[in-house]
Amino acid sequence: MSTKNGVDVAQLGHAVDAITDDSTVGQFRFRAETEWTDGLQCVTTIDDFDQAGERIHTREFTIEGDEPEQILGTRTAPNAVELLLAALGSCLSVGYAANAAAMGIDLEELRFDLEGDVDLRGFLGISEDVRAGYSSVTCTVHVDADATPEELDELRDRVETTSPLLDTITNAVPVETDVVAVREA
Amino acid sequence: MSTKNGVDVAQLGHAVDAITDDSTVGQFRFRAETEWTDGLQCVTTIDDFDQAGERIHTREFTIEGDEPEQILGTRTAPNAVELLLAALGSCLSVGYAANAAAMGIDLEELRFDLEGDVDLRGFLGISEDVRAGYSSVTCTVHVDADATPEELDELRDRVETTSPLLDTITNAVPVETDVVAVREA
Repeated sequence: MSTKNGVDVAQLGHAVDAITDDSTVGQFRFRAETEWTDGLQCVTTIDDFDQAGERIHTREFTIEGDEPEQILGTRTAPNAVELLLAALGSCLSVGYAANAAAMGIDLEELRFDLEGDVDLRGFLGISEDVRAGYSSVTCTVHVDADATPEELDELRDRVETTSPLLDTITNAVPVETDVVAVREA
Repeated sequence: MSTKNGVDVAQLGHAVDAITDDSTVGQFRFRAETEWTDGLQCVTTIDDFDQAGERIHTREFTIEGDEPEQILGTRTAPNAVELLLAALGSCLSVGYAANAAAMGIDLEELRFDLEGDVDLRGFLGISEDVRAGYSSVTCTVHVDADATPEELDELRDRVETTSPLLDTITNAVPVETDVVAVREA
């Protein structure tokens, strides 16, 4: 077994081959269930997902949500826009580790500083001219690797053109919502 | 103190008034720091944020990330696209709880089933015609509330036009990245 940065490079190659041969193997459906608890607090449960239409059961994870006191919460957990930054950081971390492994680059250290600006007039409905989400996000990547500047440029390019979160944030993804009233009004 | 769904309605009104009077009070900058640990694992730390340019220190939260075995990880934690669903669910939960409180609607139960489809050919760089992120996301809202169908429609409309995560996912947000090489190559 040949690993680089803790990534099994041979297995990565096999995965690429398998999905190239049969694209249905690369079709994933992920799930989460969020339950409101009280006030601005909630808890999200993550467990199974589908690969190629087949349900895969895994261990269960929970992620709590809340707002800080400044936004009427009790700060028992991060809020949604902070969770989004965590998702982006996690995604870029996977991208750098996997692509560096594929390129034969040894990573010593890899860290992401993420920031995002929000104008609360959007969320509070004070102004329709102000967007509800982040107006902008910045990410500084600190990388200590056995690589030339040209290799780091290529690594960055590979990661940024294939990052699911970077794509989701910098481009539009359609979201369909449906509301089911449990009680008969 | 008048609370509804655990939300202090008077305080919510004060917040709206304060930010209407002085929009800088509603300017927030959120932060996260993600550190790669090994393989496809990482840990994100969330702590302080800025309001009106002033740093606010809070307690520290950590969120772990990993991929499932099917995507070469060890499934010690959710992956980035699952974290994104958790962020969306948390955001909608806050939106429903706060707007229901403002409208005088009592919530008994509120739950969100979220799903998103990803074609891994994008992330693996197998096809440039396949996007890296979610092709689509669906969210079913289960709500048990003391409200008429018309009130629920208005609640849904208020939430969906002011949700930071729904805006971020369904529209484009600019992300600026910078890479700092720690080692001299």
